[in-house]
Amino acid sequence: MPTKNRQILLARRPTGEPVAGDFDLVTTAIPDPADGEISVRTIYLSLDPYMRGRMNAERSYADPVEVGAVMEGGTVGVVEASRHPGFADGDIVVGRTGWQDYALSNGDGVRKVAPPDPGDPPISTALGVLGMPGLTAYTGLLNIGKPQAGETLVVAAASGAVGSVVGQIGKIKGCRVVGVAGGPDKCRYVVDELGFDACIDHRAADFEDQLAAACPDRIDIYFENVAGRVLEAVIPLFNFFARMPVCGLIAQYNMTDLPDGPNKLPMLMRAVLTNRLTMRGFIVREFWAQQDEFLREASQWIKDGKLKYKEYRVAGLERAPETLIGLLKGENFGKVVVEVSPDPTR
Amino acid sequence: MPTKNRQILLARRPTGEPVAGDFDLVTTAIPDPADGEISVRTIYLSLDPYMRGRMNAERSYADPVEVGAVMEGGTVGVVEASRHPGFADGDIVVGRTGWQDYALSNGDGVRKVAPPDPGDPPISTALGVLGMPGLTAYTGLLNIGKPQAGETLVVAAASGAVGSVVGQIGKIKGCRVVGVAGGPDKCRYVVDELGFDACIDHRAADFEDQLAAACPDRIDIYFENVAGRVLEAVIPLFNFFARMPVCGLIAQYNMTDLPDGPNKLPMLMRAVLTNRLTMRGFIVREFWAQQDEFLREASQWIKDGKLKYKEYRVAGLERAPETLIGLLKGENFGKVVVEVSPDPTR
Repeated sequence: MPTKNRQILLARRPTGEPVAGDFDLVTTAIPDPADGEISVRTIYLSLDPYMRGRMNAERSYADPVEVGAVMEGGTVGVVEASRHPGFADGDIVVGRTGWQDYALSNGDGVRKVAPPDPGDPPISTALGVLGMPGLTAYTGLLNIGKPQAGETLVVAAASGAVGSVVGQIGKIKGCRVVGVAGGPDKCRYVVDELGFDACIDHRAADFEDQLAAACPDRIDIYFENVAGRVLEAVIPLFNFFARMPVCGLIAQYNMTDLPDGPNKLPMLMRAVLTNRLTMRGFIVREFWAQQDEFLREASQWIKDGKLKYKEYRVAGLERAPETLIGLLKGENFGKVVVEVSPDPTR
Repeated sequence: MPTKNRQILLARRPTGEPVAGDFDLVTTAIPDPADGEISVRTIYLSLDPYMRGRMNAERSYADPVEVGAVMEGGTVGVVEASRHPGFADGDIVVGRTGWQDYALSNGDGVRKVAPPDPGDPPISTALGVLGMPGLTAYTGLLNIGKPQAGETLVVAAASGAVGSVVGQIGKIKGCRVVGVAGGPDKCRYVVDELGFDACIDHRAADFEDQLAAACPDRIDIYFENVAGRVLEAVIPLFNFFARMPVCGLIAQYNMTDLPDGPNKLPMLMRAVLTNRLTMRGFIVREFWAQQDEFLREASQWIKDGKLKYKEYRVAGLERAPETLIGLLKGENFGKVVVEVSPDPTR
């Protein structure tokens, strides 16, 4: 068990791709809870693409992390000391306690996770398929994508924490599902393990042609996680009344200047008008009210073998910065989970 | 009265800006209705930006006009000879009978217009404020824009047939309404006559700064008619949960190649995600069911002086091609109506 509290701070705002020097690892004392608080030891830390946005000062749907503050992040932890009536020592909890070994919380936004029975998914899935990324996939696809049986759904970042769930729910709803991923290993996994109908490697020279060939009935739903080349290949393929939930834009998060031309904005606008396309940006926070329904459905789908997941685990809090840097380049394969301290349920 | 039937045909598909040679004026005999048909003499022909799209062969929400076929268009006419039980000789009708003096119809899509009482708007308004453009404005703004009192609505092409109605309905709904138009005369009209809160000239060197200054609370609804420079100025100003009905893209209809860079697509995508923006392309056809409600409300607003309109009239069917070419360059000031033959109600 950690005997000090290591914390990873935002040392400065990155320019373009983050580098190690943008983060600072400091060591402080383990904090004691005040009345009404709990102290949580981090077991698992989730790393997710949205974190790149929080490192910038630009206006967005959430306030940025301040320079010098602990990096934000979702965690699964164990209550080490509770002075809060709703929690007992030893409770497993999921919350947003950040990149550190220990954190205090007043319980807001902290949810208890039942200890798993034998055969149940590990508690780390509360950060992935049964957590924020899973709920993002579920609510974005169902509320905005509105999948209908027989439609074609294209999913960017198809082997990732969100994309993998989007595509599998698309299959459950009867869609033809075409994934896009980086490299043959991820594509093979998406088809062979997750059951997508096809998966196209966006690194292929003829990616655009392959995508068009995989969508003979055009595209009814494009679940946007990446932008860049994938989006530009999708734009000419939309069907009338297509929908595009805009969940993430990982290919442009490290961008410092707009790319060289031509200016493709008119191409998108033409597609929006002539197809009567709906685009809608969203974040999971809008849809928290659907969490219980999601957890019930997703847990059952996992039991039934219809919803699979893959974790990409990294051991040690100190590796979080390099792992986030790699995540933004697609170096992970599956949901990124940092193992911070021993899991008492394993 | 015309003694022959002049028809304007699409002679060939334009490349970029249409030219006179893309149209052909031919003269044929006045057609006789068969059983179940009416013969309609055109009184007024509507010219509208969407017609540019119909001249291209590209996939869109409507089939293109075939080369050699009569140009499509909405008209107000008079039934010259009826062999249809639903129409009598002399009925004033609005329909889509195209760029010609006379047309036959089986009555589908043809609607009778009551002869105006003294003080009523002229029957030509069935092509404008009380016709397709008005219904487009009404349904696009209310169904997609969803204006709320106190919100800021920006309207492109604010002095045009659609934009002028959008902005005035926005005022009726309690919005702060900022128009964008080309040149000081149009801007003055939009503010002084139509009652918008402000109108910015998109030809001004500091247009972007003026627009931002006119929207101190940012933009909740952008009614898109033009794209191009106006859209690019709007993108950084969106509020959270803003809506963007995409109705037209006149600034890019004559485009043959994508413009030079930088590529502004990432700028739009970032705005969609971080503002949770909804964009939705639409055409009025989706909302025909709301026509009666629209006509009832709009007629009352006109009577009450809350909804004003301006026609830009051109005399002579033969001038339709040059007038459409000018419309695409913003040379008109108000709803474009071609006077084809005498109006029996004036």
